Amino acid sequence: MEEPIGVFDSGVGGLTVAREIMRQLPGENMIYFGDTARVPYGSKSEETIIKYSKQIVRFLLSKGVKAIVVACNTASALALDVLQQENDIPIIGVLEPGAIAAAETTVTKNIGVIATVATIKSGMYNYYLRKIDPQITVVSKACPLFVPLVEEGLTEDRVTDDIIQRYLHELKDYEIDSLILGCTHYPLLRNAIGRYMGEEVKLVNPAYETAKSLKRLLQDKNMMNTQPEKGKYTYFVSDGVEDFISFADRVLPCDVKMTSIVNIESY
Amino acid sequence: MEEPIGVFDSGVGGLTVAREIMRQLPGENMIYFGDTARVPYGSKSEETIIKYSKQIVRFLLSKGVKAIVVACNTASALALDVLQQENDIPIIGVLEPGAIAAAETTVTKNIGVIATVATIKSGMYNYYLRKIDPQITVVSKACPLFVPLVEEGLTEDRVTDDIIQRYLHELKDYEIDSLILGCTHYPLLRNAIGRYMGEEVKLVNPAYETAKSLKRLLQDKNMMNTQPEKGKYTYFVSDGVEDFISFADRVLPCDVKMTSIVNIESY
Repeated sequence: MEEPIGVFDSGVGGLTVAREIMRQLPGENMIYFGDTARVPYGSKSEETIIKYSKQIVRFLLSKGVKAIVVACNTASALALDVLQQENDIPIIGVLEPGAIAAAETTVTKNIGVIATVATIKSGMYNYYLRKIDPQITVVSKACPLFVPLVEEGLTEDRVTDDIIQRYLHELKDYEIDSLILGCTHYPLLRNAIGRYMGEEVKLVNPAYETAKSLKRLLQDKNMMNTQPEKGKYTYFVSDGVEDFISFADRVLPCDVKMTSIVNIESY
Repeated sequence: MEEPIGVFDSGVGGLTVAREIMRQLPGENMIYFGDTARVPYGSKSEETIIKYSKQIVRFLLSKGVKAIVVACNTASALALDVLQQENDIPIIGVLEPGAIAAAETTVTKNIGVIATVATIKSGMYNYYLRKIDPQITVVSKACPLFVPLVEEGLTEDRVTDDIIQRYLHELKDYEIDSLILGCTHYPLLRNAIGRYMGEEVKLVNPAYETAKSLKRLLQDKNMMNTQPEKGKYTYFVSDGVEDFISFADRVLPCDVKMTSIVNIESY
């Protein structure tokens, strides 16, 4: 099937998931949508996150996608169920793959989760982890300043180290050996978080496992693109094309040329 | 005229302007709208800020307001002109009143402005200040981390002091004696900013002067509410009623009971 995969996020962070899909599924076409006009989602209500996610799915469907990846942790936590119920094509999120990867990593069965306020409040990482193994203990912490710090470029900075220490010191009281980076911005703080948590704690980025889940799903359902060419990628945002392109050029292995503005509220 | 004043902001910050209007115009009815679903505006494009502001004005007009105060600095900087051109009722922003207050304060004629990226990029504070007095020199600085720090409650904190020092140390190279707090969140950092800048720099909060401008305007146009009762206040947001009420109860001198959700995208 040549139809593209739809990938969406509240903004630019989901490009790290898109990148992993490009690596693991190089033959697939992809349409990426970043809701840059309404970012961030992590501080919004469930109702609003569902409304926005539905609009984006309607937009992606209008582009003829064969499957959708909700690359945003917050939208995955709060809207995935509704989106799956209301649509016929396969839709996957990043939480379950992230939970699977963490559960495979842990030995102590104590897993940490850091994410936005909305994701943590949803309890969905907890739900997936304990569905995999009820013996697992989950320690969660919302880290609202991480996204603004990353966006200000302070990935290596004493202020960021200070904030990391405040958010994460509680996690040190538990014997966690696996920490899920439950927001697409957080892998950009990987070095600083790793330094603080120490080598014995493995940092889990759900992006890799999400691409793996998508590949398995396309294979199982016989939906892979069998054309021999390399996949084509198209990008849409709801605001700020130039900022998007400059970020995308840093993250993606290929040049981002075609990026268009979508009036997402009309979907 | 008993019709209410419409006041809007990208979120909760504009309540500091609403509070000043309640103080200076206690007989006026007021409708407040906070765009909490799409906050923040400070990092968005001009086009999007204008689109959102127009929707909000249409909503306020549907409620029969007689005048509108754009309490958000970013929306004032980018959308005020368009809103004034397209509507018949009086619409005022916070930038010109803020500029007037700063121009009245300065002796050295060197004025600092701190605000969001979008407000600084617009150059509008510069425009208003130099319209008042072309001799004035304006030194501007965008401070993107101030809003997240305030929202995280870190108004008195070593991290905030560190960030203040980084953003504002450039301003110390100029002999500014007046600093405009050009974002409704910044007055909440007044103590920390004042400590760093020193007593010789007067901090200007546009809210007071905005309420004064509104009063003058209503008097000039004979639009004051002459009913003897105290004004009635109604609140609308696009998301998160509870968070809004808890913030409003801290800021306003009266209890906030009636707060309703508006589907602002439909206006």
